[in-house]
Amino acid sequence: MLLVILDLGGIFVFALTGALVGVRKDLDVFGVLVLAGATGLGGGFVRDVLIDATPPAALADWRYLMVPAAAGLATALWHPTIGRMERVIGVLDAAGLSLFCVTGALKALEYGLGPLPAALLGLTTAIGGGMIRDLLAGRVPVVFRAELYATPAFVGALIAVIGTELDGTLGAPEPVVVSVAAGTCFVWRLLAMRRGWQAPRPGLRGGGSAST
Amino acid sequence: MLLVILDLGGIFVFALTGALVGVRKDLDVFGVLVLAGATGLGGGFVRDVLIDATPPAALADWRYLMVPAAAGLATALWHPTIGRMERVIGVLDAAGLSLFCVTGALKALEYGLGPLPAALLGLTTAIGGGMIRDLLAGRVPVVFRAELYATPAFVGALIAVIGTELDGTLGAPEPVVVSVAAGTCFVWRLLAMRRGWQAPRPGLRGGGSAST
Amino acid sequence: MLLVILDLGGIFVFALTGALVGVRKDLDVFGVLVLAGATGLGGGFVRDVLIDATPPAALADWRYLMVPAAAGLATALWHPTIGRMERVIGVLDAAGLSLFCVTGALKALEYGLGPLPAALLGLTTAIGGGMIRDLLAGRVPVVFRAELYATPAFVGALIAVIGTELDGTLGAPEPVVVSVAAGTCFVWRLLAMRRGWQAPRPGLRGGGSAST
Repeated sequence: MLLVILDLGGIFVFALTGALVGVRKDLDVFGVLVLAGATGLGGGFVRDVLIDATPPAALADWRYLMVPAAAGLATALWHPTIGRMERVIGVLDAAGLSLFCVTGALKALEYGLGPLPAALLGLTTAIGGGMIRDLLAGRVPVVFRAELYATPAFVGALIAVIGTELDGTLGAPEPVVVSVAAGTCFVWRLLAMRRGWQAPRPGLRGGGSAST
Repeated sequence: MLLVILDLGGIFVFALTGALVGVRKDLDVFGVLVLAGATGLGGGFVRDVLIDATPPAALADWRYLMVPAAAGLATALWHPTIGRMERVIGVLDAAGLSLFCVTGALKALEYGLGPLPAALLGLTTAIGGGMIRDLLAGRVPVVFRAELYATPAFVGALIAVIGTELDGTLGAPEPVVVSVAAGTCFVWRLLAMRRGWQAPRPGLRGGGSAST
Repeated sequence: MLLVILDLGGIFVFALTGALVGVRKDLDVFGVLVLAGATGLGGGFVRDVLIDATPPAALADWRYLMVPAAAGLATALWHPTIGRMERVIGVLDAAGLSLFCVTGALKALEYGLGPLPAALLGLTTAIGGGMIRDLLAGRVPVVFRAELYATPAFVGALIAVIGTELDGTLGAPEPVVVSVAAGTCFVWRLLAMRRGWQAPRPGLRGGGSAST
């Protein structure tokens, strides 16, 4: 129950970021709703298609469809207010990122994938929706260039996977594993936002070919 | 039999619109063919992958591959003529939209999805190919900004789904449901084209954040 | 065993081309790795999702994930050198193209698809990764406009499919079919690069509508 609420909450925040991009790109209400849905649910859809968990969970439970629709409509109506809450949305988005990288990785493990693929699918769950949002909005995914976003999610997914795999051995109860994994991602992401941490850009190192 | 002919006809018109975009973007023949195929078949592919009806029907029946190829080649050869038939193509495209939103939704119902997800997959079937066309051609999907296109398709799909679900109760024979659903979408889309109806754009309401 | 090595080699070269695009687009290390992975593995992922061979093979074997990661990191570190090896990379990329169009088509045949869809999925395997790379990097797929790339791959896939289907009849041993198919694609692609062969662009034929 708690997990469903957290899940829907994460989808709502992701959908808000998608809807805001849609409003700022001057799309109509339908476009705003599509960006909200794609951002909120897209990562999970890609994961579910790749691990063959189709139809995706979000298509079997109407709440998962209502939540991004609500986020999209709210943004269409009150985007000046919502757009000004960027700091709050950033923090909530970090929480959604932390949640999805862990739950996505654990779902992939459940479906029989190995540790490394499962961690990658956790990452996909967490950042896939935002990448689809950016493609639909006609821009290079911001996760390729902005402050650290993917690395914390991947490390969070890795911790979740390794912790779960060792579970039998070390006897760490699952909630501990999940909390450490999600907490690491969350704190790291918040610090990255606050301090402007970025991943290095190889193209900036002055190599001759990089100017092309 | 009639349904297959209608289906192939819809794919042909969609593929024409894709091929025309390819020619206008100055792609080579191969690019024109890919845009024709993606526009004609893409929506159905996405639906089939999501409801796990793979391999998609179009990969099991060579006619479904020949039709967009024929549309692509015809456009490559005679695009000045075809490009001038924009009004006719617009009407036929509205017919394809009306057909696919209904058949897509009914196929999703058949595969056990609930009414709302089935209607959304009907919408996906109808507009997915055009969205893929636009992504491949490097532009924001026109369905996010132009005259009403998605709303009639979604409402058509909803009518088809609700009518079919109520079928047992009301005893409406299926052809009636299908005709009302597709007819609503078709007339609405034609009116939208004729009168320039558009969905509201939240970003134009003068909110401060919309200018970013 | 030889096939696995060739397969990994092809993925490595494809991933190099993806990573170079990422460096030149000034993405960060994470973006470079994603482009490397998408280019190296994307075509196979799309094929496996469409023929329902999920989870894709690359998610079940960690070597398939390590290879594009290695290519991405190598490019991030030494891109000025790697970027200067364009001729060598072009030849190796042609080899990867030739390999993937054949192996992709044969895998689709194995999963029960007909000859024409199987050839199309061979083409998808060979060029899908590069198309995803270009979409993620914000550009129209180069395969739609540059020197012949898709046509040799499609013909190679067709030869592989037809040769395999006739196998019982003509008794051509499989290695012969594979070699002829891959060799045709390889030589044709090399000649196209060397002589600048391009597919015709319908939009250049001076039709009035092409200027839009």
